[in-house]
Amino acid sequence: IRNGYPEVILCEGKELEHIVGIVEHMLETGNNIFLTRASREVYEALEKITSDLEYHPIPRIIVVKKREVEKTESVILVATGGTADIKVAEEAALTAEILGNTVERLYDVGVAGIHRLLKNTDKLQQANVIIAVAGMEGALPSVIGGLVDKPVIAVPTSVGYGANFQGLSALLTMLNSCASGIGVVNIDNGFGGGYLAGTINRQIEKARRAES
Amino acid sequence: IRNGYPEVILCEGKELEHIVGIVEHMLETGNNIFLTRASREVYEALEKITSDLEYHPIPRIIVVKKREVEKTESVILVATGGTADIKVAEEAALTAEILGNTVERLYDVGVAGIHRLLKNTDKLQQANVIIAVAGMEGALPSVIGGLVDKPVIAVPTSVGYGANFQGLSALLTMLNSCASGIGVVNIDNGFGGGYLAGTINRQIEKARRAES
Amino acid sequence: IRNGYPEVILCEGKELEHIVGIVEHMLETGNNIFLTRASREVYEALEKITSDLEYHPIPRIIVVKKREVEKTESVILVATGGTADIKVAEEAALTAEILGNTVERLYDVGVAGIHRLLKNTDKLQQANVIIAVAGMEGALPSVIGGLVDKPVIAVPTSVGYGANFQGLSALLTMLNSCASGIGVVNIDNGFGGGYLAGTINRQIEKARRAES
Amino acid sequence: IRNGYPEVILCEGKELEHIVGIVEHMLETGNNIFLTRASREVYEALEKITSDLEYHPIPRIIVVKKREVEKTESVILVATGGTADIKVAEEAALTAEILGNTVERLYDVGVAGIHRLLKNTDKLQQANVIIAVAGMEGALPSVIGGLVDKPVIAVPTSVGYGANFQGLSALLTMLNSCASGIGVVNIDNGFGGGYLAGTINRQIEKARRAES
Amino acid sequence: IRNGYPEVILCEGKELEHIVGIVEHMLETGNNIFLTRASREVYEALEKITSDLEYHPIPRIIVVKKREVEKTESVILVATGGTADIKVAEEAALTAEILGNTVERLYDVGVAGIHRLLKNTDKLQQANVIIAVAGMEGALPSVIGGLVDKPVIAVPTSVGYGANFQGLSALLTMLNSCASGIGVVNIDNGFGGGYLAGTINRQIEKARRAES
Amino acid sequence: IRNGYPEVILCEGKELEHIVGIVEHMLETGNNIFLTRASREVYEALEKITSDLEYHPIPRIIVVKKREVEKTESVILVATGGTADIKVAEEAALTAEILGNTVERLYDVGVAGIHRLLKNTDKLQQANVIIAVAGMEGALPSVIGGLVDKPVIAVPTSVGYGANFQGLSALLTMLNSCASGIGVVNIDNGFGGGYLAGTINRQIEKARRAES
Amino acid sequence: IRNGYPEVILCEGKELEHIVGIVEHMLETGNNIFLTRASREVYEALEKITSDLEYHPIPRIIVVKKREVEKTESVILVATGGTADIKVAEEAALTAEILGNTVERLYDVGVAGIHRLLKNTDKLQQANVIIAVAGMEGALPSVIGGLVDKPVIAVPTSVGYGANFQGLSALLTMLNSCASGIGVVNIDNGFGGGYLAGTINRQIEKARRAES
Amino acid sequence: IRNGYPEVILCEGKELEHIVGIVEHMLETGNNIFLTRASREVYEALEKITSDLEYHPIPRIIVVKKREVEKTESVILVATGGTADIKVAEEAALTAEILGNTVERLYDVGVAGIHRLLKNTDKLQQANVIIAVAGMEGALPSVIGGLVDKPVIAVPTSVGYGANFQGLSALLTMLNSCASGIGVVNIDNGFGGGYLAGTINRQIEKARRAES
Ligand SMILES: Nc1ncnc2c1ncn2[C@@H]1O[C@H](COP(=O)(O)O)[C@@H](O)[C@H]1O
Ligand SMILES: Nc1ncnc2c1ncn2[C@@H]1O[C@H](COP(=O)(O)O)[C@@H](O)[C@H]1O
Ligand SMILES: Nc1ncnc2c1ncn2[C@@H]1O[C@H](COP(=O)(O)O)[C@@H](O)[C@H]1O
Ligand SMILES: Nc1ncnc2c1ncn2[C@@H]1O[C@H](COP(=O)(O)O)[C@@H](O)[C@H]1O
Ligand SMILES: [Mg+2]
Ligand SMILES: [Mg+2]
Ligand SMILES: [Mg+2]
Ligand SMILES: [Mg+2]
Ligand SMILES: [Mg+2]
Ligand SMILES: [Mg+2]
Ligand SMILES: [Mg+2]
Ligand SMILES: [Mg+2]
Repeated sequence: IRNGYPEVILCEGKELEHIVGIVEHMLETGNNIFLTRASREVYEALEKITSDLEYHPIPRIIVVKKREVEKTESVILVATGGTADIKVAEEAALTAEILGNTVERLYDVGVAGIHRLLKNTDKLQQANVIIAVAGMEGALPSVIGGLVDKPVIAVPTSVGYGANFQGLSALLTMLNSCASGIGVVNIDNGFGGGYLAGTINRQIEKARRAES
Repeated sequence: IRNGYPEVILCEGKELEHIVGIVEHMLETGNNIFLTRASREVYEALEKITSDLEYHPIPRIIVVKKREVEKTESVILVATGGTADIKVAEEAALTAEILGNTVERLYDVGVAGIHRLLKNTDKLQQANVIIAVAGMEGALPSVIGGLVDKPVIAVPTSVGYGANFQGLSALLTMLNSCASGIGVVNIDNGFGGGYLAGTINRQIEKARRAES
Repeated sequence: IRNGYPEVILCEGKELEHIVGIVEHMLETGNNIFLTRASREVYEALEKITSDLEYHPIPRIIVVKKREVEKTESVILVATGGTADIKVAEEAALTAEILGNTVERLYDVGVAGIHRLLKNTDKLQQANVIIAVAGMEGALPSVIGGLVDKPVIAVPTSVGYGANFQGLSALLTMLNSCASGIGVVNIDNGFGGGYLAGTINRQIEKARRAES
Repeated sequence: IRNGYPEVILCEGKELEHIVGIVEHMLETGNNIFLTRASREVYEALEKITSDLEYHPIPRIIVVKKREVEKTESVILVATGGTADIKVAEEAALTAEILGNTVERLYDVGVAGIHRLLKNTDKLQQANVIIAVAGMEGALPSVIGGLVDKPVIAVPTSVGYGANFQGLSALLTMLNSCASGIGVVNIDNGFGGGYLAGTINRQIEKARRAES
Repeated sequence: IRNGYPEVILCEGKELEHIVGIVEHMLETGNNIFLTRASREVYEALEKITSDLEYHPIPRIIVVKKREVEKTESVILVATGGTADIKVAEEAALTAEILGNTVERLYDVGVAGIHRLLKNTDKLQQANVIIAVAGMEGALPSVIGGLVDKPVIAVPTSVGYGANFQGLSALLTMLNSCASGIGVVNIDNGFGGGYLAGTINRQIEKARRAES
Repeated sequence: IRNGYPEVILCEGKELEHIVGIVEHMLETGNNIFLTRASREVYEALEKITSDLEYHPIPRIIVVKKREVEKTESVILVATGGTADIKVAEEAALTAEILGNTVERLYDVGVAGIHRLLKNTDKLQQANVIIAVAGMEGALPSVIGGLVDKPVIAVPTSVGYGANFQGLSALLTMLNSCASGIGVVNIDNGFGGGYLAGTINRQIEKARRAES
Repeated sequence: IRNGYPEVILCEGKELEHIVGIVEHMLETGNNIFLTRASREVYEALEKITSDLEYHPIPRIIVVKKREVEKTESVILVATGGTADIKVAEEAALTAEILGNTVERLYDVGVAGIHRLLKNTDKLQQANVIIAVAGMEGALPSVIGGLVDKPVIAVPTSVGYGANFQGLSALLTMLNSCASGIGVVNIDNGFGGGYLAGTINRQIEKARRAES
Repeated sequence: IRNGYPEVILCEGKELEHIVGIVEHMLETGNNIFLTRASREVYEALEKITSDLEYHPIPRIIVVKKREVEKTESVILVATGGTADIKVAEEAALTAEILGNTVERLYDVGVAGIHRLLKNTDKLQQANVIIAVAGMEGALPSVIGGLVDKPVIAVPTSVGYGANFQGLSALLTMLNSCASGIGVVNIDNGFGGGYLAGTINRQIEKARRAES
């Protein structure tokens, strides 16, 4: 089921030379490489040492694709409350994809316009795991958790101002959800949300295949 | 439109003798008297000095009704997320009623079971002002604010535990709502919510009558 | 009473191309467009695609005026504690105006010089809804709430330093007001304050006209 | 795979009569009933209206067992850092069991004595989902997350004193884990942890059966 | 000017036997003794070892008066926002008095009813030092500081609930006052406020006498 | 005793044109003008419209001196814990001086080297009011308050890092001092400390002269 | 150098039967047993199963002494700011003693009366490790750290009220100390302070003996 | 054992000219000089006035080496959880070295990959004092404290984002450690950690020599 995990580097806080050095070393393994919180400067430095590079500027991710990853049958759905949350949602989606998961997206379906979400309950029903990404009051995971009986990974974002205290508001909302079946990750931690969803999905896929 | 405001006493933190003394004094004005956060002990002490007493044990309110209050045509709707929020919701509802407002109730329609709320959109549409009372993640005002274009008074409650930090979670949610048209009061402040809704409703009623 | 709500865009956190794209799309509806937290750069980009633009640099608002909005008879008064709060107050005032409300301003009447406020009680009396904007200790809504019996929308600002913790101090003051009839919005959320006041005022105006 | 969910009641904050009334009503459905945060007083009141009652005093849970629940093949492991965390861990374990999951326990394997945990890596390897319950510094989920590649549900407890701030310390630790694949629930929320693990395990079991 | 400072004991957190022992020892000095946060139990124990005892149950203070204290000419005014603040205000007033200061009281003049304060500006003018005691939003010191040009000692109280966070709200208000000439003490620290005001007043009195 | 208060402007957060306009207006009164948190840019703009300007770059203060101020006999001592606190201390000292106070300085006498302070107890004894400025743990006011029986104005600074939380640590230390006679102002509020000390000193000076 | 560590039990949060069971088990090892945060009830239960029991009611510690512990030559000094800190200080001192350390005590030498401390600098000089225990503003470790060049273990206590936030104030003070050579433990964690000092002292003693 | 302490300057917050002036003055003493948080700009300025300079750009430290320091026999081990913590760890290591200590390094052995740490238990066993530096969840000191019986100095770092709140998460973890023998310093305070470890090591070394 798995065709090798990618190597992962969190670029934030690392020197450019360091990153280049690590990537050079990793290239020898033949694995895919996944760099999060990467600036364009990092991308341009890596272009000099390898091809097969993709840069995703909004979530600031670089993928070095050295082998194909077989996709899961079961599906992870990534939903967001607003458009400003897409940056974090894409970090989650790309993380899940590099791990071999099939990912669907459903963006800008926040609770202040609940009907956009309700029109898409089929998408919620078809998913095996849902990642709900939201800032400001962060109520999306609660509403989704109430609609479906799937694992919901809640990713609070720092989108907002004033009394959102850089994402604390959304984080507390998600931890205190009156819906059950919700697991929370750190503020803006799209990577963590995508990874956890992928870890769950791998167990599901393994069960499917073991039995088939 | 107004037949005189009631006299109001917040009993919490006052000595029994003090409260009795103040009520005796107020009885001379002939006004209605409204006591919040009142224990049964206070109720029993007041029974000795006046009749026309009602005690509401769940919101801990005593009403001393000395005159009839003419009711408004326009309606305040009080909604709650869960049953544990009813205590605070009733403080709001009774406050609005003693001020002469017509009050409707819609309890236990929290976001984890969004369909209970959606089945009642007519009630939301018929109201002029809505009070949304919720603890835990406190997402109810956001959802209501997205459904209707009325003033929504958000009352966070301390219902919950752990990372709700005695209501802080619900409070922050309401302050950061991505729906517009929401004003927030203090945690567990049913009185404040009912009073503000009543103040708004009085302006509406005054406009109606002035013109008619 | 309403000649169509404006379209609203919160520019903060959106890419320039995104904003231009959304506005182009909105221009087709013929509605007014209201952009908050907009930089001069946004203004200059929009000048290339439409006329009828006004830029308000202090509150950082752009208004694209495509149709006239009929004004309400009832009045919203916007008051501030200091001059540094005017930026937020103007966000509130312009929001209320674009929604069709008649707005009065009363700036720099903070509690440390209470007589400036007391000299203007007539202005307070003539308003139907009051927006009180204040930073630092944020006591203005309490004092106004004690003087009049109108709905007061309290807007805390981040003006101050040290133990004001970016507006937390003013926010807590307003939530704990010993005056009744006060609803609070997020720190620096002039838009939210103006919108809530406008929502209230619309109910008042509707009552007036329904009956006349 | 599911033989009907149990009915669930959170007793904390509800009146005794209320709880008895709700249970009487639920008994008609023939479903199992699961009461969390239930005092012995509640247990004694329920003994008068039904048999098939079990009381678990440490996690304060009552199970009213009306039908057998078929068990999953895949396993949820519940681990704790210390003995004082067992109360919360049992809330998680019993929740998972009533939902039909096969549950293993591994208690008192906290990080200050890392060898107790390392001696049990086989248990970690055999599980499909792991619930890690810990108070004080709450480092257990990080260590487990580093050892295995399974979904880890982290449940912070309020065990500790001083700068643990009623579980905040363990909560922050778990949210900031440098291991991947960890989802966090509210402080002392054993129910939430058990429910989320059960929701994940159901997806796994469904995949296994669908394919077999 | 000073007839000897009193001996001071903070009873909170001390064993009864300890307190009695310390007082027995202090009685030998012939000084007055001032016990704060003293229960009636302490009072009854001290009655057995000395006379000249006064117990003030509301501020929970015991005064053992062994010598007369000459009073200052200059005056300390103690003002409160509400009646629930009187307990703390009396701790301040009695502290100042035992130190030999002439103390005036002006209670229940909070900002939500600003006219009660404005009717008493003569009292404010006649004082040399003002202690302003207030809970909830704690705006009284700001208003007084704006009216007069005297040192104002601000004492926040824990009166209130919810987002007042046990007095934090009033404390922050007072620290962020836009009026100048305000010094703040700890929450509920009437003793500290009375002592600081007394220390200031002693400097004033000394100057008066030195020159006369 | 007073030769007219200066006009005061807090520049932080005001536009350059605004400040120039206000100063032009104030110049007509003939009063001294005192600008705090003023950049060099402000200084250079004011040089074009008036002479008699002094710029103090470390505390970022501009003084426009139009008349002499008679000095008090009684003395305010300004002490600091470290050299990084001098910036705030000078704001306090210059504020007190422009109000006509005689000011002494005693810098870099923090508690980690207690002997530097103890060698200067004469300076402490000669002062009538003491301003103690300190960052990091902020213990200086406690130690000074224990040594002398004078009013101590405690000014916490934001000097430090990590768990000082931008001055919160020093602020809490000062509010919880076990020494009596200490009044606290906002973090980095040298102006407030100097003004309060000056207000106290004026009462002392007035008493001295009234009697002589 | 070590005659066997004692067995340690933290009683807080454990059931009585549990504690008795653990102690019965431990008695078989012949080691000393040390119970912290133990109620008198625990003491009375243990009296039934063993002799050689000492109960220290103020720090709530039970020592079951089964063998003599050889004492170190080097000395740990335990100092406190006030008398209310003694309870925590004794937890530290008894912990160090049961581990075989020679312990000196120096109580009630807080910074508000700095001369009591300065009179005892010889005691500070003779110690090899110092434990400084203080509540309220918690400045004692800073002052001691400035006087001597020894490891100082700082133990903040929860003594105080209001803005000390249950010991947070003292904790922050100690973490931000401008003196060097200070290590901090949790609020009220006398055990942790005593244990760390003992661990340091054992290294010292070992060095002494290894070389002799 | 000591060849004179170095002179120490914390550059952060000081003016360049100031620093140069202080260093010029210190050069006269002939002592080594140790500058922390020093920019390259400071280094270049000092090159003009002295030789024997080393600049360590990652921890931002300048060493002016004027005399040799005799090294201790006993060893301080500095360990880190991740590579981003090295900057702080080197501040600790260089501080300990300039004080004459023999320092070993063991970097990137965090708890999410516990086997890297376990492979190095010999290094832990050979050290006399251990400094454990970690950000994010900061669990390293707990695990090390459980493995060895040495004094562990825990240095939390601000590495991380979101709910780590600039190092608060790691700080709380370390204060609440369930392992004993751990003393904590301020966030990012490598200097403080190195100094405390050095102070402990000096006591050990002194004991060794005194006896030999
Ligand atoms: N300054 C503001 N603060 C808070 N909310 C705003 C602000 N400006 C606009 N909004 C809200 O944000 C919505 C637009 O969000 P968006 O679709 O992200 O542009 C509007 O409908 C408003 O409800
Ligand atoms: N211990 C618990 N902690 C958190 N949520 C719980 C707990 N026990 C039950 N619940 C949730 O509370 C719901 C029942 O709430 P109620 O209808 O108020 O009894 C259940 O469906 C669960 O989702
Ligand atoms: N209510 C109070 N709040 C704060 N400090 C107090 C209070 N009462 C007394 N004190 C101070 O505590 C000291 C006595 O402390 P103690 O020696 O512990 O009794 C007095 O000298 C006062 O400075
Ligand atoms: N008062 C205390 N505070 C913090 N930790 C303690 C205390 N007393 C004992 N401990 C620690 O708790 C451990 C025993 O925990 P337990 O196994 O839960 O009884 C001991 O090994 C000590 O490390
Ligand atoms: Mg669900
Ligand atoms: Mg709406
Ligand atoms: Mg009012
Ligand atoms: Mg893992
Ligand atoms: Mg004033
Ligand atoms: Mg003093
Ligand atoms: Mg030292
Ligand atoms: Mg250890």
